[in-house]
Parts: sequence; structure tokens; C-alpha cells
Amino acid sequence: MQQAGKRHIVILGGGFAGFYAALRFEKALKRRSDIEVTIVDKENFFLFTPMLPEVAAGDLSPQAIVYPLRKVLRRVNFFKAAIDSVDLKDQIVYLRYGESEEHRTQLHYDHLVLAIGSITNFFKIEGLKEKALTIKSLGDGIYLRDHLIATMEAADIENYSLERKKRLTFVVAGGGFAGVETIAAVNDFVRESIPYYSHLKNDLVRMVLVHAGEAILPEFDRELGDYAQRKLEERQVEVLTKTHVTSFTDGFVQLSKGAPIECNTLIWAAGVVPGLALENLNLTKERGHVVVDQFMRSPDRANVWAAGDCAFIPNAGTGKPYPPTAQHALREGDILASNILAEIDGRALTPFRYSAIGQMAVIGRRTGVAMIKGIKISGFIGWLLWRTVYLAKLPGLDRKCRVGFQWLLDLFFPPDLSQYTSRRSPSTDLPSPTRPERFGGTTPFQEDETAPLRDAAIHN
Amino acid sequence: MQQAGKRHIVILGGGFAGFYAALRFEKALKRRSDIEVTIVDKENFFLFTPMLPEVAAGDLSPQAIVYPLRKVLRRVNFFKAAIDSVDLKDQIVYLRYGESEEHRTQLHYDHLVLAIGSITNFFKIEGLKEKALTIKSLGDGIYLRDHLIATMEAADIENYSLERKKRLTFVVAGGGFAGVETIAAVNDFVRESIPYYSHLKNDLVRMVLVHAGEAILPEFDRELGDYAQRKLEERQVEVLTKTHVTSFTDGFVQLSKGAPIECNTLIWAAGVVPGLALENLNLTKERGHVVVDQFMRSPDRANVWAAGDCAFIPNAGTGKPYPPTAQHALREGDILASNILAEIDGRALTPFRYSAIGQMAVIGRRTGVAMIKGIKISGFIGWLLWRTVYLAKLPGLDRKCRVGFQWLLDLFFPPDLSQYTSRRSPSTDLPSPTRPERFGGTTPFQEDETAPLRDAAIHN
Repeated sequence: MQQAGKRHIVILGGGFAGFYAALRFEKALKRRSDIEVTIVDKENFFLFTPMLPEVAAGDLSPQAIVYPLRKVLRRVNFFKAAIDSVDLKDQIVYLRYGESEEHRTQLHYDHLVLAIGSITNFFKIEGLKEKALTIKSLGDGIYLRDHLIATMEAADIENYSLERKKRLTFVVAGGGFAGVETIAAVNDFVRESIPYYSHLKNDLVRMVLVHAGEAILPEFDRELGDYAQRKLEERQVEVLTKTHVTSFTDGFVQLSKGAPIECNTLIWAAGVVPGLALENLNLTKERGHVVVDQFMRSPDRANVWAAGDCAFIPNAGTGKPYPPTAQHALREGDILASNILAEIDGRALTPFRYSAIGQMAVIGRRTGVAMIKGIKISGFIGWLLWRTVYLAKLPGLDRKCRVGFQWLLDLFFPPDLSQYTSRRSPSTDLPSPTRPERFGGTTPFQEDETAPLRDAAIHN
Repeated sequence: MQQAGKRHIVILGGGFAGFYAALRFEKALKRRSDIEVTIVDKENFFLFTPMLPEVAAGDLSPQAIVYPLRKVLRRVNFFKAAIDSVDLKDQIVYLRYGESEEHRTQLHYDHLVLAIGSITNFFKIEGLKEKALTIKSLGDGIYLRDHLIATMEAADIENYSLERKKRLTFVVAGGGFAGVETIAAVNDFVRESIPYYSHLKNDLVRMVLVHAGEAILPEFDRELGDYAQRKLEERQVEVLTKTHVTSFTDGFVQLSKGAPIECNTLIWAAGVVPGLALENLNLTKERGHVVVDQFMRSPDRANVWAAGDCAFIPNAGTGKPYPPTAQHALREGDILASNILAEIDGRALTPFRYSAIGQMAVIGRRTGVAMIKGIKISGFIGWLLWRTVYLAKLPGLDRKCRVGFQWLLDLFFPPDLSQYTSRRSPSTDLPSPTRPERFGGTTPFQEDETAPLRDAAIHN
């Protein structure tokens, strides 16, 4: 489907870096026809990750924080596909597509953009891969919310008090942004929901944040990290610093120090690693990340570029790489796309230089921490700032409307306790999936032998 | 957890009949303490089924049409559990609960309300159980929407034109309410989405409604059924009447007459049957439905009652049973609960008598058909009437707000094409489920060996 005589640019990944690179090309395609651009992702939407914890806590519907790539990319092609492999020599990307990714196709490129982001790293810790929950994808957010509700429902029926206590113990590993925002959201959601469960009480709930470093939110000034920890503790979250998880087996989280924690729920937010598609690529890497120069071009291949969480981009000022945050990734994607256009046109490339204005985190209902241009902001103002800035950054007017409206409803109505997972109605005897608890507890169904009452009217 | 000295009333099923019975008891519990009431359902929400096709077509978010049972039932107990069996002699209901329904518990009852509704009946037609989609549960609605988008995504990449045509052919079996509203919603959604897929065109899409009877919408006057058929045909839906599906294998829907249809998608809306929990119950039944008298009490057991789709309630006027519709079920539930209270108090029972005011169906964007007190209404006014009446009937102010707001957005923004299913991020090597295509196409993941770049900062 690619047209001859055009330069083909293929972007792998539709996260912040890939999406913003595509947006830059979309603009360029309004006035030039010498290039063709294709973006590839396994999901057909851009996920606004900063709001993922709010989906996990049921404050926002999944629909509100995703933006369909096809809606805004009318000139840039989109392929919903998984990456099989990349042939750097022949400049071909091999893809799998279809409902179960069983079909194969390929794309030739003149320029390749690697923006595949990162995935969770379990560090081979025993039991994590099998039992820990994660908070990276939209599916993770939906699944976590359902899991929390299912857990409370089961605890409410449970007569055996030790079992009930185990179900109401929640551990989050990782005291960075993701972990702190997740435990804050989970804590609020569970504690605000408990009054609806007649056999449960708030003092049966235990919430633990496990963090390896000295203070949580290491991305911030120590003072703000300490403030965040104090706030979490006020909200009945136990914060264990200088501690790490050593295993999660037989319903116990084992720690590097202190008593093991008996629980059903461990959410792992303590490490990421670049996506698997880079593994076999013969490019210079730094701990799995593709090393590029200040123009985001690989030193090994002049037509391969990388940005976002999977890239190692040197900061000329500090000598260190730029951090893996959304606000960096989107700017990297934009500059990267400009550089490819400049390269095609024979113009000079622009080095990537960015100094973050600030950082923000939500640490529970109506409380935030932020550091903007060195100024520390915390409490209600920090929370309001978070919501204002992120609502402004959320792409798409309809999404802004949805999120704004749901935040408004949220002020007036209690949390939503409906547990909905994507599953068929129990009408058939489909075999249950190998891990049914992952997908909402489908049970094997019995064949139905009875005939309908009014089949004359309702049989097709 | 049941208290001595109280009459225990157990309601099985939280659909229209069970939910409205529970609401009646909730009111009664404000002023009396001699009864205890428990409602049991596998889902912890009441599903507003009339709007399910709108979820399948992405017009409404799943959250908007479900109402958490715990929110409104503060005096009535709720158990999220599956029914294992019922012991009529000892008056005990055996339940399974927990995330994968692996735990067991039981409830003793003095009065039992059977309101378990109906499930899809495949009539043992070859291939349906394995391959057909259904539209009964919330999971069905979410799954169907995701399937439609996945199908369009795959068709857009597909180079082989026969395969593409097969992917863009959609068959709905069943010309009653559910089937007609579903094909209307699916047709609108697919055709409005096609312009966003650069390799697809509207004339590649084929939509077929297969119906066994002479005219669709047999619940209505023939004239309105014919009008609905004409409208669907104007919108490029083929309507095959006096035809039924004989099998769905190897990608072909075989029909009782005419050419087989090559397609990936068959939605089965052509028959229901009472839920499986009734199968082994030793009560008088009529084609699987529990026969009750005009007071909704079983002739076999004075403390067993039934209402809704699983019950056979005689209409004293016509001699036929009342039809299995939402507007009947909710009234049946209400009267049934009143009758149990009257029975406990030694008052006279009230026979169930109801004559439906009218019926309504949506047959696509801005078009509806309705028959209200014998008056036929169709077109835009019919559609407006449908939305007004159902918005008024939807329980819960927050739901009304959500649905009203989403309908409003819907007037201004194009359809949402994001495919989101509940699944984990691809960070682990969990085995894929046995039928991955049912749950969103998870693929087996490879183990990740690379270490992270900044593990000092992000490791817990």
C-alpha cells in the first residue's frame, strides 16, 4: 500500500513520543506530498497515562482517557499490529495483525522511529510474574478496579476473619510517581467504598506502600516526598521505606526486612524496562535503551531514530540521559519528527534540549504535591493545579468534556461499585480460560437442554 | 450472618424482577424489623438492558447503564455469588463466591424469590456455541463493541480482498427487539466509523438480519414491523425473513434457504431460555419456566415465588403467560414483594394484572418505532420518545446525568474507535488464555532479560 517515489517514515509505538511525532508529520502532510508516514501500535488509541490511576480507582471511565489515533491522524496511516521483528539492513518492519495477531504483513521504511515505550520489569522476583498486578496499560487500570471490587465483594461474604483480613490487605511496591499515585487512588477508593459493605469496616483495611529508597517520590525535593509520606500516613497508608519485596508466594509478600504481609493483592510499580521489540536489534544500547545522539538519531544507522522511554538521549548539560516522563517524551517526539523532515530537506537538525518546568503528583482525594520552577506547592492547591494542567494537556475536546464532567459528577456522587469485565453472558459451555480469575471469573457452563417458552415468537 | 427471630427472604437474581422486588423490601425495612432480606446475583449491579445495544455501538459507556446494587440497597443484604443449588425441602440456597467462585456458603430462607432471568438459547445449532456472539450481558456489550473495532482494524490492514469482505460482513440472527436494535446500532456504528479507515469503503460493508417469522418486530403491529424493515433497508441492511440459521462453521453462516454467507461475525439474538439454576428444581415448569399462580406463588411450595423471564405467570384475561419484557418484570417484582409481605402479615394477596401501555424500539440513528395505547409512532418522534422514556426510567440520578451527557456529546462528536479490553500490559509471560480471541487477543509474552536504565531511582 506504500506509494513509489515517496519517502516512507514508519513510527513504532503510539505513546507520548510516537503520537507527538505523528502529530508533527500530520501537520507537515498538509503541505507536502513527498513523504508517507505510518504509525504502528498494538492498541488503536493514545493512552493518557497520567490519569490511569483515576481509572483504576473508578473516578474516570476508560473511555475518557484514551484518544483514538485514527481520529486525529487523517493523513498519517495507522496500523493496529504487533511488531514481530525489524530488519535494519533491508529496512523492513515485520508485523502481526488480526484479532489474535495471527496474520502477517510488512512495511518498508526509509526512516524508522523507535518509540515503543517501556514495560513492567519484575526483576525475576519469585511470584511476581504470576500473581502481581501492574499499572501500565489501560487493561491494567480496568482490571485493577474490577479486582478491588471483587475483593471487597468476597470479603463481605467471608465469615472467616483471617481470610477477610487477607482480602482487605493491599500492598503497592514502588514509591515513585506511579506507585504513590496508585496507592493514593486505591486507598481512597477502597475506604470510600467500605461503608457500602455491611460486614466490612474501615479498620479492617490495611494499605502498605513498599519503597526501596530513603524517601518516596525521589523525583522530587526531599521535603515534598516527606510531605507526601505524611499525607499518606494520615490517610492510613503504612509507608515502608528502605525496604523491598523479595517474593510473593502462597499469599504472602516477603520483604527484605520486617514481617511478611499476608495479602491477595500486590501491585507492582517498581521498575520498567524498554519493550521487547528492541531486544534483538543490532544497535548500540545502554541497559536495553537505544542510544541516540542529541538529534535522536542512532550512531549506527543514519535512518533510525528513537525517543521516549525506550531511548537513551544524552542531556548535553548534565551528561545524563533525559528522564522517562511524559512531558519529556512528547517534546522528544515533536523534535524528532522535525529532524527527520529537516534531514529529508537537507536542512540542519535541531538538538533536543528541555528542562522540565516542574513535576506534580496526586496523593489522594483533594491533595497534591508539585514543584514548579523550584517552587513547592502542596495540599489542595497542588491537587487543583494537577487537575487543571492535565485537563489542559489531555488531547481532544470531547475527552476534555468527558473528564471535566466526570470530575464534576465525582464531587456530588459516591464511588461507583459496579464490577464490569468484558465477558460473555453465561449462555454457553465455553471452556473457562486457563486463568479465569484474570478475566472476571468465568465458570464452565452447563449445556442447556430446555426449550424456550415462546420460541415461535422469538426464534429467528 | 442471619439473625434469629426474623423471617428471611432470599431473592435470587438482580435483574428487573429481582431488583424491583428488593426495592419494595428496602422501603418496607424502613418501618419493620421482623424480616431480613438478601438478594444474590453474580454481578454486583443492576443492568439497564434496554440500553445495551447503545453500549455495543459505543454510544454509551458501560458505566452509564449499570447501577450498583449496594448503592440503593442499604437495608437489604447483597451477596455477589453464583447459585450452586437450592434445597427446597430444607429451605437452603447453596452459593459459590470469591474472585473465581471457589468458596462456598449457604443461606437459609423462609421465602424464596426466583428471579434469575433468562440466558441465550443456541438450540444446539452447529457452531453457535463456539463462534456466535451474544447480546445479553454487559460483558457481551463491551465485547461486541471491541470485536467490531478489531474487525475493522484488521480489515484495514488486509490486502486480500475476499478476506476483507468476509471481515466486513455482519449477520444478526433474530428479528425481535434485541436483534433489530442490535443490528441497527451495529450498522450505524460500523458505517459511521468506516470513513476513519483509509483502506475501507462503505460499499464493502454487508449487514444481514435473518428472521424466522414473516415480519420483523413480531411484538408490534405488522405495519410498524414493515416500517422498521423499510428503514433498515434504506440504511443498507439486508433483511431476510422466513429464514433461519442452520449452522455457523468454517466462516460460513448456512441458512434454511438462499446462499450461505461468508463472515466472521454472527450475533445470535434469536432465543432465550430460563437460567440454568432452575434445571434441577422439583417445581412445576412449563418449558423450563417456573409455573406460578396469579400471585406469583408456586403451587408446589407456598414459600417459593417467581417473577420475570424465568416465571410462567398466567394472564387471567387471555389465559396466556405474561411476556418476558422489562416493563412486565419490574411490575411483577414489585407486586411479588408486596405479596410476600402480605403473606407474612396475614393480609390478602394481590393478583398480578398489567396491560402494557406500549412498546418502543430504536431502529438506527434518530429513528424509532413505538406503539403507545394503540397509536403508532415512527421516525424521529419515535426515537425522541424512546430516549425520553428510557432516560426517565433509568434508575439513579448520576446515571441519568451520565447518559444524558453522553447523548449530548454524541450529537457533536464522531463515534469513538478506541478498542479497550480488560487485559494486563504485555510485561509478563503469562500463558495466553485458551481462547484468546474472546478476551482481546492477548499473545504469549516473552520473558524480559534486560535490566532497567534507572533502576536506582525506580526500583522499589
